[in-house]
Amino acid sequence: MYRTKVYYQDTDAGGVVYFANYLKLFEKSWFEYLLSNGISLPDWEQQGTFVLVKNVLLDLLDKAYYGEELEARTSVSDVKNAQFTLTHAVFRNGKAIARGETLMVCVDVKGKPRRIPEDFKKRLIACQTSSATMI
Amino acid sequence: MYRTKVYYQDTDAGGVVYFANYLKLFEKSWFEYLLSNGISLPDWEQQGTFVLVKNVLLDLLDKAYYGEELEARTSVSDVKNAQFTLTHAVFRNGKAIARGETLMVCVDVKGKPRRIPEDFKKRLIACQTSSATMI
Amino acid sequence: MYRTKVYYQDTDAGGVVYFANYLKLFEKSWFEYLLSNGISLPDWEQQGTFVLVKNVLLDLLDKAYYGEELEARTSVSDVKNAQFTLTHAVFRNGKAIARGETLMVCVDVKGKPRRIPEDFKKRLIACQTSSATMI
Amino acid sequence: MYRTKVYYQDTDAGGVVYFANYLKLFEKSWFEYLLSNGISLPDWEQQGTFVLVKNVLLDLLDKAYYGEELEARTSVSDVKNAQFTLTHAVFRNGKAIARGETLMVCVDVKGKPRRIPEDFKKRLIACQTSSATMI
Repeated sequence: MYRTKVYYQDTDAGGVVYFANYLKLFEKSWFEYLLSNGISLPDWEQQGTFVLVKNVLLDLLDKAYYGEELEARTSVSDVKNAQFTLTHAVFRNGKAIARGETLMVCVDVKGKPRRIPEDFKKRLIACQTSSATMI
Repeated sequence: MYRTKVYYQDTDAGGVVYFANYLKLFEKSWFEYLLSNGISLPDWEQQGTFVLVKNVLLDLLDKAYYGEELEARTSVSDVKNAQFTLTHAVFRNGKAIARGETLMVCVDVKGKPRRIPEDFKKRLIACQTSSATMI
Repeated sequence: MYRTKVYYQDTDAGGVVYFANYLKLFEKSWFEYLLSNGISLPDWEQQGTFVLVKNVLLDLLDKAYYGEELEARTSVSDVKNAQFTLTHAVFRNGKAIARGETLMVCVDVKGKPRRIPEDFKKRLIACQTSSATMI
Repeated sequence: MYRTKVYYQDTDAGGVVYFANYLKLFEKSWFEYLLSNGISLPDWEQQGTFVLVKNVLLDLLDKAYYGEELEARTSVSDVKNAQFTLTHAVFRNGKAIARGETLMVCVDVKGKPRRIPEDFKKRLIACQTSSATMI
């Protein structure tokens, strides 16, 4: 989960958040979400496991304006051996204004695909289970 | 079509182009592609027609590094009354390293959906036909 | 004051925060600093007063890496009739890693310079006084 | 020298180029300027010489709007043993709309300051001389 306001740097000449900036918000959201579930991406990098984005879906449902408060939330929707899927939503006053999905792959320091390390995977699965329970 | 190099500003600590920056490359590509087909987005804005991104798909096929030359190409894949779909690809040395699709909607100055103006639509359809012919 | 972590989006292929991104951090810092002192920039825009950046100084003292926590702080260092100067610093663990200054000018909706509105200016001067007192 | 248009991604809700984006334009300008003078920054990185920004000055003289064509130009204004100064300007229709200066330092792969390599320095000095001659 990541809360932020819309600053000038996030907007474009249309007066609203520039579409590509929702992906940046997703990144902040998944970083904090994973961290709060015991998965520190910077720590895993130190140990040689890197996480890359492979695929992105983004749906823009409404506009967001300068000064507004946004909240991005992430959940784990699928976990495989070497990749996992995250689902993201951005809310303003509790209403979703953007939704998205990112397929993440694990690679080693040379960029070669590798299995998700055991502890990392265990925690992802725990996230997934708890998200499912919340529904 | 838009040619660029990868500058520091496009990369991240992983040493490659940051995933969200492909969307920025798409924007430059569609702007130039439409312009070269007689559709100036800034001119249409002057006349009250704005084009927004509604949906995005992005597939990352390979990495791109600092200093490399990239070429982004756009084509029109679908044209409806109030929206159209653009298909994008980013190439390095003729090999696709990213692909994507953006669903674009026409809105008026207040952000309300409107039909694509006649001349704009005619040109989009001409683009679509010529893309189809190229295949 | 604005606290953030360094995310991938903030870094470049050198592995550290991209130099221009410190200005974005300054913007978030001055927005929040002014807001906490009763100056809401978005509200002033609604009333026809816009604040533009005219000049920037930036000194990079140290590097910041992915995952690190940063804190940006702003103070008011000068207030004139139509412009004011903000001083910024970015800290990591209490140590300054970047410093900067921005000269801000007030303009109307057409971009013409205008005097800082009375209430806005009064609050800026209060900020300046309290900063001075802290030293 | 670097020519570009102003795209949506460069602008903010004020309808003009976001101030920090001028620094990104400077980077593209110095990259291309140095390259055209025989200094390939990515090649020097391969050989263990990295160039960092240490100081920035930025003056915003006029606004730039969506769709406008800009040209950024760089020149070498000072060369020392381990650092050099670049001067930048951004023009629209031949009129400067932004000016700036960046102090660059050479570091090794670990980020430690190092002397500018001989060939690199020789070329910088040649740039400086030819800039001076142009005036």
